[in-house]
Amino acid sequence: MPQQPSIPKGTRDFGPLEMVKRNYIFDTIKSVFKLYGFQPIETPATENLSTLMGKYGEEGDKLLFKILNSGDYLQHVDGQLLADKDSVKVTTKIAEKGLRYDLTVPFARFVVQHRNELQFPFKRYQVQPVWRADKPQKGRYREFYQCDVDVVGSDSLLNEVELIQIVNDVYKRLGIRVVLKINNRKILAGIAQVIGQPDKITDITVAIDKLEKIGLDNVNEELLSKGLPQSAVDQLQPILKLSGNNNEKLEQIAQVLATSEVGLKGVEELKTVFDWLEPLGLQTPVELDLTLARGLNYYTGAIFEVKALDVQIGSITGGGRYDDLTGIFGMPGVSGVGISFGADRIYDVLEQLDLYPKSASQSTKVLFVNFGLTEQKWCMPVIAKLRAEGIGCEIYPEPAKMKKQMSYANARQMPFVVMVGEEEMQQGKLTLKNMETGEQQSLSADELVAVLK
Amino acid sequence: MPQQPSIPKGTRDFGPLEMVKRNYIFDTIKSVFKLYGFQPIETPATENLSTLMGKYGEEGDKLLFKILNSGDYLQHVDGQLLADKDSVKVTTKIAEKGLRYDLTVPFARFVVQHRNELQFPFKRYQVQPVWRADKPQKGRYREFYQCDVDVVGSDSLLNEVELIQIVNDVYKRLGIRVVLKINNRKILAGIAQVIGQPDKITDITVAIDKLEKIGLDNVNEELLSKGLPQSAVDQLQPILKLSGNNNEKLEQIAQVLATSEVGLKGVEELKTVFDWLEPLGLQTPVELDLTLARGLNYYTGAIFEVKALDVQIGSITGGGRYDDLTGIFGMPGVSGVGISFGADRIYDVLEQLDLYPKSASQSTKVLFVNFGLTEQKWCMPVIAKLRAEGIGCEIYPEPAKMKKQMSYANARQMPFVVMVGEEEMQQGKLTLKNMETGEQQSLSADELVAVLK
Repeated sequence: MPQQPSIPKGTRDFGPLEMVKRNYIFDTIKSVFKLYGFQPIETPATENLSTLMGKYGEEGDKLLFKILNSGDYLQHVDGQLLADKDSVKVTTKIAEKGLRYDLTVPFARFVVQHRNELQFPFKRYQVQPVWRADKPQKGRYREFYQCDVDVVGSDSLLNEVELIQIVNDVYKRLGIRVVLKINNRKILAGIAQVIGQPDKITDITVAIDKLEKIGLDNVNEELLSKGLPQSAVDQLQPILKLSGNNNEKLEQIAQVLATSEVGLKGVEELKTVFDWLEPLGLQTPVELDLTLARGLNYYTGAIFEVKALDVQIGSITGGGRYDDLTGIFGMPGVSGVGISFGADRIYDVLEQLDLYPKSASQSTKVLFVNFGLTEQKWCMPVIAKLRAEGIGCEIYPEPAKMKKQMSYANARQMPFVVMVGEEEMQQGKLTLKNMETGEQQSLSADELVAVLK
Repeated sequence: MPQQPSIPKGTRDFGPLEMVKRNYIFDTIKSVFKLYGFQPIETPATENLSTLMGKYGEEGDKLLFKILNSGDYLQHVDGQLLADKDSVKVTTKIAEKGLRYDLTVPFARFVVQHRNELQFPFKRYQVQPVWRADKPQKGRYREFYQCDVDVVGSDSLLNEVELIQIVNDVYKRLGIRVVLKINNRKILAGIAQVIGQPDKITDITVAIDKLEKIGLDNVNEELLSKGLPQSAVDQLQPILKLSGNNNEKLEQIAQVLATSEVGLKGVEELKTVFDWLEPLGLQTPVELDLTLARGLNYYTGAIFEVKALDVQIGSITGGGRYDDLTGIFGMPGVSGVGISFGADRIYDVLEQLDLYPKSASQSTKVLFVNFGLTEQKWCMPVIAKLRAEGIGCEIYPEPAKMKKQMSYANARQMPFVVMVGEEEMQQGKLTLKNMETGEQQSLSADELVAVLK
């Protein structure tokens, strides 16, 4: 007896119930993307390792799944490397391809490779799996979907505004209450510049982040302990004590950053975004949050993060502006801005809040009970008629026991069954049973279509 | 300057235009699958090599893409194996996972692994990419999608009939004229049995296949040259001279197979399928074709193949019944039947016959021309209103030259543009221009919604 089969750790099978829920999420997100004029693309699961390596840091290189070259791949590997069992060096000789690690680098590669066929600004969305050889743990998988939406080739802040609108629309449709936090990399750069500590930005944002939890005095102490001089900590005080609404906070920041050109540019950008958003009356609160520091080496302008208000879970959407995505592939000066929706976390939020629409699980509306070959043959044209009218239906493929057939209909959550026996065939009628109420009706085929449609 | 980036050979990027067409195909196929009560599943891209190896023959094992283990994978490999540069043996030590080669083996693994959660008969569809390290050539890729639909856990021939109905419905919706060829493995087994040549089945079907091209005499000569005794060739004559409609042919076959139990069972099965199909009046002709021998070692009952009538191209859909799919994973006695749609070939057929619906390429209905920041801000709530009504629209993100904005709208095949300048803002009206006719209308926001909806 063979061993019970299994799948690689960190990967998942999705059965029908999960698929219906996942498709509900993907379809909702995609339908919003489309309303904003974003177009789908897909890239191959495998990329050349030369495309992927060095793009995600040293740690990232290790997390790439690498694909063994085909054929007699060891033939041309230097014997000494093999004798040394130097896994890292041997890898470069026996693996040329890897599985994509995210959708951003393949997108950059796509834009550069197809630059002459594309219309700029190029607005694309991409919903595909990515793979990472991370240690699997709760909520972290080795294969998971990303849902990315990006605009490249436009500096306009209108793109930032539209991405925020997209976040608002997606979560409104899904029924999830969220807050969108926004920051700007240029403001962080300005703060570092003004206090003369450009390499302490991370320490500063980490400290600010603890403000509510540990209080101002402790934060100041922590900053000193991280090596910030007293003068820098003093200069930071207005930043730590920011209060009021977004625009009031921006005013206070602007005063601190008065001498920093880049810092004031950041303030100006955020002001414009808030100004343009204001008349749109979004349901989603948009909050300035200086502690947002994701992708710090990567983003050059806006930084976004979205949190669910009613579930304790990390960021469910995030992104920002990057000024030179395609530079690594030899096409400099193309600015982009994008966000990524985390499907797995959104799934968990919907599950916890019980927000999936009930209809999502009903793919088949009615089961025709199979009473025997004659009845089956009598029913088949009626079933074909229902399907032609767009009504999903099934007939149990064998004349199995009634109980078995009914429990099949129940397990599949079908709202109706149709029964046709000798009497029905004689009268040219079908008996429709409502599985919830138990109510039965005797109907002609045409009437059945009308009732089920 | 970095090298122009590229993708692994045999793989493809899909840009927006291709995606729209591909999604049209996938959506059409899936919508039919759903009407018949099939449910979606997805399995991981990677499977354990123990699941995949040995399932596709020796050649298939070589065509599997294998994934290098993570970390210091060479550490525990026997030094002698490395010194010998024995690629095949070393592979088993350094790669535990591979990319799936088809959807059938992962499906079998899925059924066995989740047997206790599934409702049988289990009707599933699966639309996912597969990977093969084949030599790339025109129309053959290393990454391509399969669209599989299968029922497991039911012996009923109703399943065969419903799969034929699905083929009919899919191609009717796509507008492709096709013929469905059907054979039965049991008939081939019966022929081999009756003439006492069980190992010559392939030679026989190849010879029958040449009948039209080279004539009966040459076919008989070829059979003799393949080592069939004269007596066997004599017995085959009625099979070679089959004439009439499907049922008449089956009668003639039944006479030849009078002494073969399995052969007569095959005849009986096909008779039932034809009998049940008849009253449904399908548009697609269904033809008995004894030369159909695909998956001969695999299929145990019906064998299907679908050919386009108006384009010279290979089979665009195929499948059959297999009596022991899950046996390899320790769950014997579960019969299944399924078919697989070849998305790439269907794509080519639609392209050649120019059958894509025109609407498929229009994702955005209208572009708002950007005349400047004031106009842009004025337009933004109107745009939000259109999107809330489900109308896909965009505003050009910068106040670029009119010509540039119009050429963007043209290249994206947008049917309308909206122009709002000073005059429009004063009057609270928007100018809608039909890009095809050139016609212009002055409309309020509400009127605009009504016209575009």
